[in-house]
Amino acid sequence: MSYVIDKLRQLKNVEQELLKASAEDKNIALEQVALSLDRNRGSILEANKEDLIQADKNHMTDALKDRLMIDDSRLDGIIAGIRQVAKLQDPIWESDKTWTLENGLTISKISVPMGTIGIIYESRPNVTADAFSLAFKSGNGIILRGSSSAINSNIAIVKAIKEGLGKTNISQEVIQFIEDTDRKHVSELLEAKGLVDLVIPRGGKGLINLVLETAKVPTLQTGEGNCHIYIDESGNLEDAVKIVVNAKTQRTGVCNACETVLINEKIAGEFLPKLYKELKDKVEIFGSEEVREIIDVNLATDEDWATEYLDSKIAMKIVKNVDEAIEHINKYGTMHSESIISENYSNIKKFTKLVDASTVYVNASTRFTDGSEFGFGAEMGISTQKLHARGPVGLEQLVTYKYIVLGEGHIRK
Amino acid sequence: MSYVIDKLRQLKNVEQELLKASAEDKNIALEQVALSLDRNRGSILEANKEDLIQADKNHMTDALKDRLMIDDSRLDGIIAGIRQVAKLQDPIWESDKTWTLENGLTISKISVPMGTIGIIYESRPNVTADAFSLAFKSGNGIILRGSSSAINSNIAIVKAIKEGLGKTNISQEVIQFIEDTDRKHVSELLEAKGLVDLVIPRGGKGLINLVLETAKVPTLQTGEGNCHIYIDESGNLEDAVKIVVNAKTQRTGVCNACETVLINEKIAGEFLPKLYKELKDKVEIFGSEEVREIIDVNLATDEDWATEYLDSKIAMKIVKNVDEAIEHINKYGTMHSESIISENYSNIKKFTKLVDASTVYVNASTRFTDGSEFGFGAEMGISTQKLHARGPVGLEQLVTYKYIVLGEGHIRK
Repeated sequence: MSYVIDKLRQLKNVEQELLKASAEDKNIALEQVALSLDRNRGSILEANKEDLIQADKNHMTDALKDRLMIDDSRLDGIIAGIRQVAKLQDPIWESDKTWTLENGLTISKISVPMGTIGIIYESRPNVTADAFSLAFKSGNGIILRGSSSAINSNIAIVKAIKEGLGKTNISQEVIQFIEDTDRKHVSELLEAKGLVDLVIPRGGKGLINLVLETAKVPTLQTGEGNCHIYIDESGNLEDAVKIVVNAKTQRTGVCNACETVLINEKIAGEFLPKLYKELKDKVEIFGSEEVREIIDVNLATDEDWATEYLDSKIAMKIVKNVDEAIEHINKYGTMHSESIISENYSNIKKFTKLVDASTVYVNASTRFTDGSEFGFGAEMGISTQKLHARGPVGLEQLVTYKYIVLGEGHIRK
Repeated sequence: MSYVIDKLRQLKNVEQELLKASAEDKNIALEQVALSLDRNRGSILEANKEDLIQADKNHMTDALKDRLMIDDSRLDGIIAGIRQVAKLQDPIWESDKTWTLENGLTISKISVPMGTIGIIYESRPNVTADAFSLAFKSGNGIILRGSSSAINSNIAIVKAIKEGLGKTNISQEVIQFIEDTDRKHVSELLEAKGLVDLVIPRGGKGLINLVLETAKVPTLQTGEGNCHIYIDESGNLEDAVKIVVNAKTQRTGVCNACETVLINEKIAGEFLPKLYKELKDKVEIFGSEEVREIIDVNLATDEDWATEYLDSKIAMKIVKNVDEAIEHINKYGTMHSESIISENYSNIKKFTKLVDASTVYVNASTRFTDGSEFGFGAEMGISTQKLHARGPVGLEQLVTYKYIVLGEGHIRK
């Protein structure tokens, strides 16, 4: 039996235990996990230091090292996150729909765990604890495959989680970590039909494409965010400048950052100089020919429209009207987050109806598409597919349902 | 551009038209489609006769020919089905969840169409009309790929649907039919990344496996039903006999028919002779060694437990208790429909909680797992996967959602 299959079978063995666990059982266990992470602070920070030394040897960029780094304050954040998930309402065995057929059969649609969830993720070791707490609270077993660059940190965190579970009546086997970073185990996980109910890849294009090409198990596509902000002719231009600056620069390397601004031609002459003034020292700007007639920026090509920069770069294009903006977004967008800055009711209605994305904003920054911001506690990622879940994936997105049908000797006529 | 890709691009072109269509627009169009099917009655029945002549030449079984056949009464049923879908509540742009963040941002989770749905199906030409009406009512374009044995019937039905749409303000392109029955077009559809939002295969194991092996687009696994009924020691045995006979014999070739009966050892001696009396002339029975000590039936092997007979055959096994029944079902079941016959509260609670299936029955036949029976109007199939939709796939399962976030110049801190 292969290495990954063996771990998946261990998760299968604890599925019923998780189904039987009450909300109280789970919350007590999460508190034990939080306490254990705190107790093991020394060894976790130590392990993280090893990863950072290795990162230096591999000439990792500062941005990536920052994502990898755990200090006391970040560990406090991880621990607080687990306690926050414990406080969220239990998502299991709830029903928003019970109805009775004419023949007297009563049907209830009840939320139940998916079973086993897999996550494949890069760099950030806090994902290890976040993903565990969300999966566990929603009654799912979890198998994790982190990146080799964070291997020591991840192993230390998983060890602490298991130690915490060891002090409860819940089996330590509900979390399985793939310590062997050989890439073949990613494929094994993606092909483990019948043994894993959902695999969430959280990473760059390479990982997402691997999943699309090879997965034989259900997956949830996440993270690619080529997000736009459209400035309508009726928009409040002061707000528009603030929002674009926020959406691009508050953090540049994230999926909900703005990558292209679309500007209505009627206000381009007034708006672009204002925006330019605020952005020019912060990011590199790529504009269409028409933009370059107003402000002094690099020339954008079609490739810019299709690029998720994830960097201090932004593209700008002038459009005739809201229809052209919608057309551009539906052509180049990745169904992540899109925003319109407008005071015009009809244009807002059109934009929110016709733009095909997980989250459509009116007069707000795209940066709010996030499990914590939405009030979901934490997230497993941002879904950019339409099946099952769209946008931030929190507890409610990690469950499925079953119908319970109560009869009294009912047979079908 | 390939044949299927071309059809998918035509569907992309009408996506916005479908988003803009009001419930009234769609219902008027469905009525026109119903009228057109009635008006084209002659040509549809004629085309079906051609398929039946071809079926005779190919020595098709009577059961399959019956599935293929359309007469006046069945066509009336198809037309009535379309009118029933028109009467269902429109599933688009509804919200059961709006909330406001501390910062004042208001978020609404709104139901929206998936976009383009594909269906690959066998034999029954009524699926052509059912699938169109459900997809259309939920605001989706649809591409259909029926079996070659029903090709003339399907073409005639699609022609009538398009003729009906021709009398409305909705484009005829919202329905696309793959007339060329070359199997390569199935693969083209399954690999059309980004052009189809969901493909539903509705057919036998061969089709389902092809989808699992080759699909690069989101799919919904349907139809495999190895369903069980467990007779608890506390069950009402008269009801139990009635229910098993109904679940096996009311229709044998359907996915929600019962394939294996599990009998508590404490009541096996009393129950099996009663059941045997009612079933022995109707179906072939395969029993475990222990069953054969009580009634005279064929010996069942492990293969019987794993087989969806879809035929006048049933398997029987004696189990120690509800735990063994649950274990057997979770090992051999296909997450379709499972039933317990019991008066014991604790056993019922355990069974409904721990059996992993789309629909779990108490004291009722498994035959009710069906879109019409559930009150969904019609169905695209019965999902046996956990992602997105479980059980009967009706209007509500053919939509996705998006978040609309209303701000007033909000930026992220």
